[in-house]
Amino acid sequence: MQRIPWSTILKSQPATLLPSVTIGALIWFCTPASDELTPTAIRILAVFVSCIFALITTSVDISLLVLTGLALLSLTHSFQCEDKATGLLTECRLCGEPNPLTGDPYKCHGAKESFHHSLEGFSSSVVWLIFAAFHLGKAVEVTQLGRRVSLLMIKMFGKRIMGLAYAIVFSELLLAPFVPSNTARGGGIVHPVVHAIATTLGSTPTHDPKVGAFLMLVGNHANLISASMYLTGMAANPIVLAKATQLYEGVNFDFLTWLTGSIVPALVCALALPVILRWSCGLSSDSKQRDEEEQGGSNGGAISNATTKFPNDGIVKHAETELERMGSMSGKEWQLCLVLLLCLCLWVTSSYTKLDATLVALLGILMLLHMGTMTWKDISKNTNAWDTLFWLGGFVTMAHQLSDAGASAFLGHKISSLIEQLGLPPVPFLAVSYFLTTFMFSSLSAHIVAFVGTFLDAGHALGAQPMLLTALLAYFGALSGCMTNYSTGMAAMYYAPGYVSRSKWFLIGFQLALFYLVVYFTIGMGWWRLLGWW
Amino acid sequence: MQRIPWSTILKSQPATLLPSVTIGALIWFCTPASDELTPTAIRILAVFVSCIFALITTSVDISLLVLTGLALLSLTHSFQCEDKATGLLTECRLCGEPNPLTGDPYKCHGAKESFHHSLEGFSSSVVWLIFAAFHLGKAVEVTQLGRRVSLLMIKMFGKRIMGLAYAIVFSELLLAPFVPSNTARGGGIVHPVVHAIATTLGSTPTHDPKVGAFLMLVGNHANLISASMYLTGMAANPIVLAKATQLYEGVNFDFLTWLTGSIVPALVCALALPVILRWSCGLSSDSKQRDEEEQGGSNGGAISNATTKFPNDGIVKHAETELERMGSMSGKEWQLCLVLLLCLCLWVTSSYTKLDATLVALLGILMLLHMGTMTWKDISKNTNAWDTLFWLGGFVTMAHQLSDAGASAFLGHKISSLIEQLGLPPVPFLAVSYFLTTFMFSSLSAHIVAFVGTFLDAGHALGAQPMLLTALLAYFGALSGCMTNYSTGMAAMYYAPGYVSRSKWFLIGFQLALFYLVVYFTIGMGWWRLLGWW
Repeated sequence: MQRIPWSTILKSQPATLLPSVTIGALIWFCTPASDELTPTAIRILAVFVSCIFALITTSVDISLLVLTGLALLSLTHSFQCEDKATGLLTECRLCGEPNPLTGDPYKCHGAKESFHHSLEGFSSSVVWLIFAAFHLGKAVEVTQLGRRVSLLMIKMFGKRIMGLAYAIVFSELLLAPFVPSNTARGGGIVHPVVHAIATTLGSTPTHDPKVGAFLMLVGNHANLISASMYLTGMAANPIVLAKATQLYEGVNFDFLTWLTGSIVPALVCALALPVILRWSCGLSSDSKQRDEEEQGGSNGGAISNATTKFPNDGIVKHAETELERMGSMSGKEWQLCLVLLLCLCLWVTSSYTKLDATLVALLGILMLLHMGTMTWKDISKNTNAWDTLFWLGGFVTMAHQLSDAGASAFLGHKISSLIEQLGLPPVPFLAVSYFLTTFMFSSLSAHIVAFVGTFLDAGHALGAQPMLLTALLAYFGALSGCMTNYSTGMAAMYYAPGYVSRSKWFLIGFQLALFYLVVYFTIGMGWWRLLGWW
Repeated sequence: MQRIPWSTILKSQPATLLPSVTIGALIWFCTPASDELTPTAIRILAVFVSCIFALITTSVDISLLVLTGLALLSLTHSFQCEDKATGLLTECRLCGEPNPLTGDPYKCHGAKESFHHSLEGFSSSVVWLIFAAFHLGKAVEVTQLGRRVSLLMIKMFGKRIMGLAYAIVFSELLLAPFVPSNTARGGGIVHPVVHAIATTLGSTPTHDPKVGAFLMLVGNHANLISASMYLTGMAANPIVLAKATQLYEGVNFDFLTWLTGSIVPALVCALALPVILRWSCGLSSDSKQRDEEEQGGSNGGAISNATTKFPNDGIVKHAETELERMGSMSGKEWQLCLVLLLCLCLWVTSSYTKLDATLVALLGILMLLHMGTMTWKDISKNTNAWDTLFWLGGFVTMAHQLSDAGASAFLGHKISSLIEQLGLPPVPFLAVSYFLTTFMFSSLSAHIVAFVGTFLDAGHALGAQPMLLTALLAYFGALSGCMTNYSTGMAAMYYAPGYVSRSKWFLIGFQLALFYLVVYFTIGMGWWRLLGWW
């Protein structure tokens, strides 16, 4: 038999999982159980930590990790079961073992009850909101409505490069409440337009990439700002809301509250973004020169060298031509407009109508399907949506069980006592840690699901102002994606064409991270003080 | 504005739904509420009947119908809610309305609780078993293990046309316990082989179609017999088990019980099937002639005219060549064999290990993924599986709520009193009605989900022997698909090449239906009597 080289074995999937499995096993077998941390909580924690570690260190598919974790927990009966007699949550014991609540032998429902718990996440309405978000985004893409909006923006603002940048930013801010999947919005709608603009300006990754790089970065970071601005700006945002509502009685971070808190700091960031990026990309002097050239009357239509000939009317004319070629709004676009407006109205008024945000999104999809704006095939072939439904459903089960078993509160308590011992200011420390931990994640949603509960628990234990902490964690959930090119599918798509080198991407990311932190801790805090949030 | 012709309007999706909506509205608004049938039960019934009617009469996608039904029920709060104080089920009232159990104003959880109920079906383990079944079937297809099994069968039995037919039947019977999706098994594994055999024999729909027609019909009906023979033979079979266990304390139709009851009548049907079909297809005299020819020594290898030159060694040689070309079993095939055997062992022993059948299937998939036998992409691109997960999850919610609200029991009671009034024998009447109603359905699973509960309830009210009724309904669930070419995706695939005309397909279907009914009511009942089931 041929010998397999060591390097191949070390790169194989089981080998890359070894460190994660080791860490999990250490927690599983070596953590002492106590009143605070039950054996069930330890097991769930072990599987959870192991999953997250594998998520960061390996390229194994997230769905496979989650499924493995759930199967392991099911096999070992490591879920919290409801005691039928008292209605209290308890460990799912094996048949005949003493029930921890009553001392009687545990009435055995077999492994079935435990297994049934592992499927609970799939009926979580948050998971289905994200699922619905993917499909609304698909509709905006399929009907070309998103493309039209972007082209209109360019027609209006496209005379100067800064105008173009602001057009991209405003497209994002306008689309964000309607397209609750930031990847669908950025990757599916805005990115194709940004890429088309860059190419039209004669900027390619190999030839005169500066203008293209600037526009790509604007598109990427505008997407994250808009994602943080609205409750419906990113699919995972409602998870923060759900956890905060569960933890604090008075806190209800609904659509309007979310927007009220974010509108001032997010708009400041959005307005400053193109200016900062122009400076970071080294475009400032060039464009000044161009502005002067333009005022001098050099209004040449030829588009050959972006750096010297820009700005001109070419790109505006291009947008006009494209819009003319698209013709007037199609029936499907009108239908989609109607449905999206209706959804927006229902989301904004949900505190009065008591309609679940997920139900609203599903109703929107239903209307689109019945009117024939999109077909069921568009939905069933949207594999990203189904994939996300699967891994997020499983992840939500685990996070939920982690919380039920008290492990999340235990960790939060540990963090809070550390903060107390070191005498650190709790809210800034928690918020900044939350921001920086995103660096380890390849999915903003995964980061939020994994950490928001623990950090809110820690803040709760330290007596942090509920609204203040919730606001910071809510807004940082999306903003923190600025640091890397793998934080979300959208960032990967803007990075892919190659206008910006990896080192430059990370450098600019950290500049912006610093800027966001400063803005939210000064202007943001000031605004929330005015609102009476702390 | 151009006038749209009436014919177009009448064929449009909303127009075809009009009769279904009318029926639903009639039930919703005109049924008098009583103690037996609460307003909630009437609403759920209206939506359910309307969905089923639309399923039969329109071509609207089943997922869209289910989603519409669920949204309507959510919007009107038509679900059964659990009263937190007493733990009893009650209607979900609007805020402030009197609670039907206590008379106090209903403590309002908004529409959210009601909406949450509509997602319950998605954490049903039956739904996830079907989902897992699709993927196991995919693995059998992807690794080519299924193809190898069929080719081996042909190599062993393929000398005569009846030998080929029995090879197809035994392939199905052997694969059925391992590939719990009958469509994956029939459509994905066996059908391609059957089609290849027919073509190799020189039989096409236009030229000498008799042999091809015979083989296609054998493949189709062998699939249904094997689906009815094992609990894991068809994805929806466990639904019968779940409902029966819920209704009758002593009835546990697990893998072994199911097989014990079915083995005698199903094997009789399987053995008789090729003989009946040879007669129905008018092949009997031809093949006799051929057999004689063969004995006369005309062993020509040329395959040009199937009817005159068959049988010969050509097809056996073809199988041998194909098997040689496939080479020895690949690593992936061995891995799959191992996993399937393990799954089979765990399914067979599940009453001892207390492992959920779904967990076993998921563990199998997990092993395949970790060994690299299949990739997550194979799973996420298997849109049929996701689609089924969606509509079946929604359908299960509705069927479950129908049962919780008492509507299923009410209907069962109505049927049973009708049977009593007319003095009909309950078990045969229920079983035959159940068999024939499949005619209206385009999915065996949908038929089972829709009707098995009601028919078991009716039998329960009439005091029918539990095991007898359960057995008949369990086995007829798959067998009844023989009548039409649209009863399951598998049948549609065998019909599609066009070897058999639609009228011939239906005629032969009814002959077989009659045959199955006779066999199960004579040999089957006799066997179950021996087993002490009645």
